[in-house]
Amino acid sequence: MAVYTEVTDEALRAFLADYPLGELIAFRGIAEGVENSNYALKTTAGDFILTLYERRVDPAELPYFLGLMEHLAGQGLACPQPVQARDGQALRRLAGRPAAICTFLPGVWPRRVRPEHCGPLGEALARLHAAGADFPATRRNALGPPGWAPLLDRCRAAGDAVQPGLVAQLDAALAGILAAWPKPGALPVGQIHADLFPDNVFFLDGPDRRPAVSGLIDFYFACTDLLAYDIAVCLNAWCFEADGSYNVTKAHALLTAYQRLRPLGAAERGALPVLCRGAALRFLLTRLHDWTATPAGALVTRKDPLEYLRKLRFFSTAEGPAALGF
Amino acid sequence: MAVYTEVTDEALRAFLADYPLGELIAFRGIAEGVENSNYALKTTAGDFILTLYERRVDPAELPYFLGLMEHLAGQGLACPQPVQARDGQALRRLAGRPAAICTFLPGVWPRRVRPEHCGPLGEALARLHAAGADFPATRRNALGPPGWAPLLDRCRAAGDAVQPGLVAQLDAALAGILAAWPKPGALPVGQIHADLFPDNVFFLDGPDRRPAVSGLIDFYFACTDLLAYDIAVCLNAWCFEADGSYNVTKAHALLTAYQRLRPLGAAERGALPVLCRGAALRFLLTRLHDWTATPAGALVTRKDPLEYLRKLRFFSTAEGPAALGF
Repeated sequence: MAVYTEVTDEALRAFLADYPLGELIAFRGIAEGVENSNYALKTTAGDFILTLYERRVDPAELPYFLGLMEHLAGQGLACPQPVQARDGQALRRLAGRPAAICTFLPGVWPRRVRPEHCGPLGEALARLHAAGADFPATRRNALGPPGWAPLLDRCRAAGDAVQPGLVAQLDAALAGILAAWPKPGALPVGQIHADLFPDNVFFLDGPDRRPAVSGLIDFYFACTDLLAYDIAVCLNAWCFEADGSYNVTKAHALLTAYQRLRPLGAAERGALPVLCRGAALRFLLTRLHDWTATPAGALVTRKDPLEYLRKLRFFSTAEGPAALGF
Repeated sequence: MAVYTEVTDEALRAFLADYPLGELIAFRGIAEGVENSNYALKTTAGDFILTLYERRVDPAELPYFLGLMEHLAGQGLACPQPVQARDGQALRRLAGRPAAICTFLPGVWPRRVRPEHCGPLGEALARLHAAGADFPATRRNALGPPGWAPLLDRCRAAGDAVQPGLVAQLDAALAGILAAWPKPGALPVGQIHADLFPDNVFFLDGPDRRPAVSGLIDFYFACTDLLAYDIAVCLNAWCFEADGSYNVTKAHALLTAYQRLRPLGAAERGALPVLCRGAALRFLLTRLHDWTATPAGALVTRKDPLEYLRKLRFFSTAEGPAALGF
């Protein structure tokens, strides 16, 4: 899944010689993450993750991502911390690609989300937003509202093959979402993760045997955008059951825990339904694009875009804050 | 690549509760191996590999594979050692599949084979053969000579599309190999790995900074067959350059180191060319089968079967022991 670039042992040894990480013990490809090549690296100094950044990542944006992780880790957030080579640089090159070593985070991502995960998730998200507050760099959300119309255009030819009438529905949904989207300055902005799905959140049992967040990973969609949009992504990603129903208990746990650290203002609460519709549309469009770009017989799991059409419909019809879990 | 079955955290915790391995720290899919689902498992007791056996493995054969690994590890060979649960069983079930936890082996497999790898490889192969000598169970080589004609039959329709005339060439090669194959009893038989490719052999730097074998993995093609056939597999897998040329320096290093521990008899030396042709045909046929069974547009790396046609030709024309590296 996630080893696109192979690294010869000579190249690896030469690369590691620039780091104060002792002797190499093991180096294994990890089958997680879809954008980059990830390796579990073990040295006499401990466990690390080595990432080679593949074509879908713009090298010019890597300093933002690595700088943000460095900053968040410095604020005490459990996230991968880029390891500096002896020359002080964390972003280097290996096997012809930009590459970085980050610290290893303990924990297991939840294959099946339970309500007990959602409170710790909400708290971790609020901590992430607080920890990012004084990070000075910014990154535009490349998959934010201005990016949706071009994405939809690229799916126009193939979209109706997925479901007849789909493209017209998405045109209408997009127009409605853009018209209702918060105006600049209307809502608090900050550094957001923008892709905080269950496979990006590690948990370990706390002392009370309840799940506790042990780390957040994969900051390669992070950007500077509406803080409440990050909540909308999480409501989409964590609060629906396999049968498509919205689990208001999970959403309530997430929102309550988040607001314990950062209460949402009236404008944010009011905007949350349209932010949720926008987040549903964003994942629908990227999945639809990947779906139509992947051959039908490919032995690769294509994520069903229509899952997000159902979520979009839910958020389009949900009435009032209570329906979302407030 | 190699996570076909997802494991929920509840199922994982319940599974681990039966082992004396302490608390769960991490659980990540590994992008290596192609037949089974492999996870890197870290607990307070250390690092382990959890394998879920997928459909291509016959559950009835798992006790042979796990028993062999247990036996070899007991003889001091560095290979994965199955970990027994509290009830003394190493083979259990998880997520609807047979499953086992094995010890983690340090080391890195060589992405680019150098001559310095081949001596340690030959020595490790001879040690494996010696360590298996008193293992009492046997397993027929399902991909040995009697399996090749049926495999070729399954590729008959699609084979010539890969290269015109290929099927006729393979028919002729198969007939020649079967006619020249050693008769039962003619050569020493024992437990062989039968798939000792570079990604199944881990190396670490020895005290002299030269590569030393740190472990052999993936015994799921192991069987009871001609010991010299295992050498033939290694000559195929380790001793050709990317341009198709046979590197006699690598072969010589492999054969010399092997024979330091177990000298080959005259009959084995004499049979080695046909064993090499058989091994080339075996990998050619399984690759051809996978090639013709995989859609052309699939985003999965299909291994080129014609690489082994070139190797088959080399071994068909190589004259005398010196050409093979003796």
